[in-house]
Amino acid sequence: MRSPDPSPSVAPSLGTAVMGRLDIVAGLTDEPGALTRLFLSPAHKAAARQVGAWMEAAGMRVALDAAGTMVGRYEGDRPGAPALLLGSHIDTVRNAGRYDGNLGVVTAIAAVSELHARGIRRPFAVEVLAFGDEEGVRFPVTLTGSRALAGGFDPKALECRDGDGISLRQALRDFGLTPEGLPLLARSPADVLGYLEVHIEQGPVLEAEDLPVGIVTAIAGAARYGVVVEGAAGHAGTVPMGLRRDAAAATAEMILAVEAVALAEAGLVATVGTVEVPRGAVNVIAAETRFTIDIRSPDDTIRGRALAEIVTRFDAIAARRGVSYAKSSFYETPAVACAPGLVAAIEAGIRRLGIRPRRLPSGAGHDGLALAALCPIGMIFVRCAGGISHSPRESITAEDADAAARLLVDILSHFDPATR
Amino acid sequence: MRSPDPSPSVAPSLGTAVMGRLDIVAGLTDEPGALTRLFLSPAHKAAARQVGAWMEAAGMRVALDAAGTMVGRYEGDRPGAPALLLGSHIDTVRNAGRYDGNLGVVTAIAAVSELHARGIRRPFAVEVLAFGDEEGVRFPVTLTGSRALAGGFDPKALECRDGDGISLRQALRDFGLTPEGLPLLARSPADVLGYLEVHIEQGPVLEAEDLPVGIVTAIAGAARYGVVVEGAAGHAGTVPMGLRRDAAAATAEMILAVEAVALAEAGLVATVGTVEVPRGAVNVIAAETRFTIDIRSPDDTIRGRALAEIVTRFDAIAARRGVSYAKSSFYETPAVACAPGLVAAIEAGIRRLGIRPRRLPSGAGHDGLALAALCPIGMIFVRCAGGISHSPRESITAEDADAAARLLVDILSHFDPATR
Repeated sequence: MRSPDPSPSVAPSLGTAVMGRLDIVAGLTDEPGALTRLFLSPAHKAAARQVGAWMEAAGMRVALDAAGTMVGRYEGDRPGAPALLLGSHIDTVRNAGRYDGNLGVVTAIAAVSELHARGIRRPFAVEVLAFGDEEGVRFPVTLTGSRALAGGFDPKALECRDGDGISLRQALRDFGLTPEGLPLLARSPADVLGYLEVHIEQGPVLEAEDLPVGIVTAIAGAARYGVVVEGAAGHAGTVPMGLRRDAAAATAEMILAVEAVALAEAGLVATVGTVEVPRGAVNVIAAETRFTIDIRSPDDTIRGRALAEIVTRFDAIAARRGVSYAKSSFYETPAVACAPGLVAAIEAGIRRLGIRPRRLPSGAGHDGLALAALCPIGMIFVRCAGGISHSPRESITAEDADAAARLLVDILSHFDPATR
Repeated sequence: MRSPDPSPSVAPSLGTAVMGRLDIVAGLTDEPGALTRLFLSPAHKAAARQVGAWMEAAGMRVALDAAGTMVGRYEGDRPGAPALLLGSHIDTVRNAGRYDGNLGVVTAIAAVSELHARGIRRPFAVEVLAFGDEEGVRFPVTLTGSRALAGGFDPKALECRDGDGISLRQALRDFGLTPEGLPLLARSPADVLGYLEVHIEQGPVLEAEDLPVGIVTAIAGAARYGVVVEGAAGHAGTVPMGLRRDAAAATAEMILAVEAVALAEAGLVATVGTVEVPRGAVNVIAAETRFTIDIRSPDDTIRGRALAEIVTRFDAIAARRGVSYAKSSFYETPAVACAPGLVAAIEAGIRRLGIRPRRLPSGAGHDGLALAALCPIGMIFVRCAGGISHSPRESITAEDADAAARLLVDILSHFDPATR
């Protein structure tokens, strides 16, 4: 065993190596001409194999678990020591960018590879996890791999189906996995020191402040609702304006109410991302509309207060317009705070790299939401151009990737399991 | 030849007979369990045959023309005299009511049948037209039959296709018709005295004033627009509210602007009947939305002014929100005034029946829009429950159907070709 190098002199090419590997994995797609890599797809299998090969080359023992997560373990100074988990996800949205998720996996492998090259063994193991289901695009469930590790996987989810009618259970089997093994993946808290993830910011804060990396304080809680508005159909030419019960006009007012509530409340975002008029026609007053609401805040109290205000406004709109509405919640997850020990460890590393530490919340969900039930979590954000994500226009620089990789090496070199 | 009976004593069962025939024709549908009778469908053929049989029984010479219009001709006191045209359409929307269109055809046949039973020949012929394409549901064109009579059929329309990819040309052939014959259907204005249509009101005015029938003054002009709004996609959790260019929120404001302009302008209605967010997702800020606008007024000047105001408001909304939009017109038809002579003839008949005459515009389009290019047009509205149309809940009473049929008999008995 070697003790950590007190003054790390990391090769400056780490960022370049990370960017090169991101280019390679970006070529593994289910859709020619675009990057689309859905959970348990052929492209997912190819990407899992690729990162598994890189894990092995970095000195890790590698296995694909029953949830399709590729797991690489780099032992500490004694076999079976508790592990600090690093990682992110390798599934993507449709027509995705190449950094969301993949950056965290590739950067973690690069950091372990650096330890390995320098022959460093720490008093804890390091595991790199490449999750397969963070985006939740293919199935109506998400975080399958991280939930399984945290003991929070619901076996009923195996019966849910994708758009082609294929169940999660069948898709796992087709991938070569054993669905019955998912409940057995739960880790013991005694074996896990924490979970640390590098991810692009997906927002504009670091770019605006000219910082390569930032420290995540909390992952926002989120709730999603489906709303159905029922008005009265009518002939677009013959029903006077004053006698209408127009579901589309009521919905328009509701969308603006959601926006107004979010604008009035700091630390909250709310979005109506889908709107439809089922069986609508150009010449028929809308009888029914459907839309969705996504509300997020790092503070669940603020989120609850905003929802109450939205409901109050919807009630008034519906009453005034003679329409009715029904709201159903189809997703809700509370905010999760990052562990103070990990926040402090990241901040100390950032200071050692000579970068001004900037704390910020994550508006997006991540695997840490699930893993927080198992262990302390921490996240490092990397600046991305224009705050753009979920788009082929996602962009980061090799210099920022280098800063993130060096930061991970620094944190792994200094991390004290006793003070997490 | 017999001269018209100066004091008509019409059988009080006319309304009952009309309602019975409407029940029969309502059974002719393309969709079990609902009334759906699209242009050139099997149900259309069955309905055309049925009304053709009734026309023959009423003493008319019957032929199906090249546009699928069933035409019955009841000669006047000399063969080949100019004709007063009566009629309406026998196609329906999907899941339709049984009165829209069909009422006008069945009532006209009942009126001619009454003349025939009484042996009356007038100094003009009467033709009953059962058009097949007024609703414009199957193909992206409408008024095919009436446009052809008025010489306004555009042969390019033969190439348009229905949702199954079948061209209008092919559908006409499959129906047993000769598409090349359409341009030959144009009537000479010298042969046509006018066009008179009975139709349900499709609005609430007559019901509110407790009147069985009313006199249409004009058919509203209408314009339809497709609007595409382009904003910027973004992550619903990470883009601060103040930095968004949300196409859905901009669209909501635009929908309310359309409504506000219509509310502020008497004699105008405007409707946003379809809204969609293509590729929208609950957790993505809308990059693009599409919606339609339908604007109608019996006064084209008012309609033009309202459109200009809508554009002014859209421009301001787009500028303030940093989105762009494009508006394209896909349908526009000017308002058509009913002929003063026919309005007066209908009003005189209504007075003779002892009913208070009520004039009102038609917000809906009708075959008269096309026939106005050929001859003077007039329309009689019949009260319908709740103003409801395009719905299985369409409802009229036998008493009101009787009033409409007796009114037509009265008008045919008194109509003076010289004063139309």
